[in-house]
Amino acid sequence: MRAAIKSVGLLGGGVIGAGWAARCALNGHDIAVCDLDPEAERKISEVMTNARRAWSRLTLAPLPAAGSIRVVKTIEAAAEGADFIQESLPEQEALKISLLARADKVAPPDVVIASSTSGLLPSRLQSGLAHPERFVIGHPFNPVYLMPLVEVCGGARTSDTTKESATRFYRALGMHPLLLRKEVDGFVADRLMEALWREALWLIHDDVATAAEIDDAVRFGPGLRWAFMGTLLIYRIAGGEPGMRHFMAQFGPALKWPWTKLMDVPELDEALLDKIVAQSDAQAGAAGIRELEQLRDDCLVAILQGLRTQDYAAGAVLDRFEKTLWAAGHRSEFDIEKSDLTKPLRLHETRVEPGWVDFNDHMTESRYLQVFGDATEVLLRVIGVDPDYHRGGHNYYTVETHLRHLREVEGGTPLHVTTQILGTDDKRIHVFHSLYRSDDDTLLATAEQMQLHVDTRASRACAAAPQVLARVQRIATAHRPLARPAGSGRAIALDQ
Amino acid sequence: MRAAIKSVGLLGGGVIGAGWAARCALNGHDIAVCDLDPEAERKISEVMTNARRAWSRLTLAPLPAAGSIRVVKTIEAAAEGADFIQESLPEQEALKISLLARADKVAPPDVVIASSTSGLLPSRLQSGLAHPERFVIGHPFNPVYLMPLVEVCGGARTSDTTKESATRFYRALGMHPLLLRKEVDGFVADRLMEALWREALWLIHDDVATAAEIDDAVRFGPGLRWAFMGTLLIYRIAGGEPGMRHFMAQFGPALKWPWTKLMDVPELDEALLDKIVAQSDAQAGAAGIRELEQLRDDCLVAILQGLRTQDYAAGAVLDRFEKTLWAAGHRSEFDIEKSDLTKPLRLHETRVEPGWVDFNDHMTESRYLQVFGDATEVLLRVIGVDPDYHRGGHNYYTVETHLRHLREVEGGTPLHVTTQILGTDDKRIHVFHSLYRSDDDTLLATAEQMQLHVDTRASRACAAAPQVLARVQRIATAHRPLARPAGSGRAIALDQ
Repeated sequence: MRAAIKSVGLLGGGVIGAGWAARCALNGHDIAVCDLDPEAERKISEVMTNARRAWSRLTLAPLPAAGSIRVVKTIEAAAEGADFIQESLPEQEALKISLLARADKVAPPDVVIASSTSGLLPSRLQSGLAHPERFVIGHPFNPVYLMPLVEVCGGARTSDTTKESATRFYRALGMHPLLLRKEVDGFVADRLMEALWREALWLIHDDVATAAEIDDAVRFGPGLRWAFMGTLLIYRIAGGEPGMRHFMAQFGPALKWPWTKLMDVPELDEALLDKIVAQSDAQAGAAGIRELEQLRDDCLVAILQGLRTQDYAAGAVLDRFEKTLWAAGHRSEFDIEKSDLTKPLRLHETRVEPGWVDFNDHMTESRYLQVFGDATEVLLRVIGVDPDYHRGGHNYYTVETHLRHLREVEGGTPLHVTTQILGTDDKRIHVFHSLYRSDDDTLLATAEQMQLHVDTRASRACAAAPQVLARVQRIATAHRPLARPAGSGRAIALDQ
Repeated sequence: MRAAIKSVGLLGGGVIGAGWAARCALNGHDIAVCDLDPEAERKISEVMTNARRAWSRLTLAPLPAAGSIRVVKTIEAAAEGADFIQESLPEQEALKISLLARADKVAPPDVVIASSTSGLLPSRLQSGLAHPERFVIGHPFNPVYLMPLVEVCGGARTSDTTKESATRFYRALGMHPLLLRKEVDGFVADRLMEALWREALWLIHDDVATAAEIDDAVRFGPGLRWAFMGTLLIYRIAGGEPGMRHFMAQFGPALKWPWTKLMDVPELDEALLDKIVAQSDAQAGAAGIRELEQLRDDCLVAILQGLRTQDYAAGAVLDRFEKTLWAAGHRSEFDIEKSDLTKPLRLHETRVEPGWVDFNDHMTESRYLQVFGDATEVLLRVIGVDPDYHRGGHNYYTVETHLRHLREVEGGTPLHVTTQILGTDDKRIHVFHSLYRSDDDTLLATAEQMQLHVDTRASRACAAAPQVLARVQRIATAHRPLARPAGSGRAIALDQ
């Protein structure tokens, strides 16, 4: 199986296929996606827009340059030249088997072919392939560009190498591959979801609860916990000090109680369908699909970032992914070789995120410093202070910052920072950042900073490395003719 | 039913009862909890410690002074004098009926008696009461002090007033009451959990997945979404542009597929029990129950705060709760009348949270300013700049901050800030904050700030109200003899 994957062939460009396209393209892969829908390009590009938006909030880690996405009209055109093939066609076994066989014909045998099926059996899906050993299930969750889980499941004839290759590929995309030990219809996650779903249908059918009430029972209750611990660990904790056996003794008898109707399946007749659709429409209200998707993505990003602060569950997956991105050292967006150094550098753009504002919808104080700190981080990468340099035991630390708040700024406002070097010596960089609204270039705040180069192991100041000093000097020299910015060199005093 | 609730009687002080005790006490209620376990006091006090820890991270909003918790040994002692009674006894119908009847005898009829049962029917539980109309289900989720959901369900003889009173009481505790329209065994949330749980037991029974793998399938996958949107809305979104009817057409047939074994119930024999216990032990590893509880609570807090930035789902519940706390204007912890004003004021204590550190485990720059900003907020409340004052159209804004970073500080370090007023006039307060490690009083950083009083509607500076100026002046006068702190009045320059 291929060690280096550049091109990815996608069979099917619906909700799941488009999600794969976005996730792979954001990780630098070039995509050929086969979809016959005449609107496929528009739909995939809308998913890509959502994905870019979500990732810009998800991480500051440097991503590789995004890959290209090309929509093609045959299975063969998607499969040819691909280093990895992912199928996301409708859940019809016969259709999948016949189209997988066509991809199998044109792809060299060292290319993995994976299927996104939610629950069809891999041994059956691989039955029509000349090279069944390179076929595996890689079952993702919507939105593919944000959800970490991908269930990896081999069929009877899948090789171990294939499972390992797929696992490695998905992990490099920032996902959490769960290698299944057995193939069963519905795999693991969909069996659990399906059980809950059938019960939900009964609750609607019997008028016990509406769609919105069922969702509230989940998201204000057990769903909050399921975001980081599954049922088993949550129940263990619910057992308190005596542990799992005690919990089972307490809760076990409930298995015999009439607490679910799942022994039976509701008939999905027109009446039940109408009820579900009407309740779903009422629940969604005026919100359109893109709006709901963005709301979902914003919540997912907030949860992933929240869990990242605990370095636990999906937060640990994100943390590991970011570490690999930093280590890969993809070039930052600012290129010292190609930029005009005779004016303040435009290093960082962002916007006022919903969580950055106070009850008056104004950006809170500490977020100003965060934005300036992010600009400083970019400056440091530009002058060569990167993870390798950190590992060598050196870094610049901020020892002093003078902030001036000139204008309030509301949630959602687009922002950018420009940075001027006021002076430098072999240990210090005297920096002046200016924060602007990007829509009308109003100056909002300034931050004057002294950066001190330190030996991080000895915790004391020392001279920076020659290649770093050379870059600092190059920018400082270019900035020397610039006027001192208004407000630099100030002290705080009442008599001003 | 009683409009003002001060004392709460709790029947049962296990995991759920202790959680109620903590949530109610943190909201200022005095608690009498009946529990016969000789270790009840220790266990309840450990839950209270966890709850205080979680709430200190959850919100900066001012809480009322915590109520007292008293463990008593009879149902009558818990019920007498209570304004609201909550029963959390073992899930045995006959036991609950007989003990509820004893509480019913001693409590005046205008006191609500609620049961925490996960699924027993209210019409049966109220059958032995002389005043069945004041009985209602209030089914919470573990940990009760953090989870918003409480299912409110009346029996055949429950009055509407009782349901309304219980709903109002739970909402005032920061919870999200879900009023059920019908009584069914297991209510809504537990039916959904039970369905998923039975499927999980089959997966373990059939060796398809282990306890840890099942939990991973949830928390890296559908569980992440269930923290803010339930199954119905998530499926609607998965349907993409064509909507819910289209989704049902696609996914409906799966109901007939063998994607769940829930038509049947696994026999909970010794072999299955042993397997579950062994897998649960392996999953928990060396972590003890308190450690797991704290991990769970930290993740819940991170998710609640993450969702709060989106003002959605449980985050919207937290946001509303905090607004009522701010509006209630509980006195801040610093009391100007009782404090020594002749030294810098110790206004704010915190610690370096896990999410505040960079990859070197050092607190990130912007978090310093956040801690100083929190200290400023306390100062403003102390001088009378509170939500009422804001609503009057006035506030102090930070116009300038000079930060000096003197020492690095690691995750987990306890911190406190002291605040000196360097000068003031009718529009401005010149403040100097010092940040210390609390364990050894090392000075870590300082922040000199100029606060400017503004008419927030006109967006221009103006004099503060006389009662505010009087308090500022009182502190400033007491601070006048203090030495100017080292580092005040500085400008940033290379030649220092």
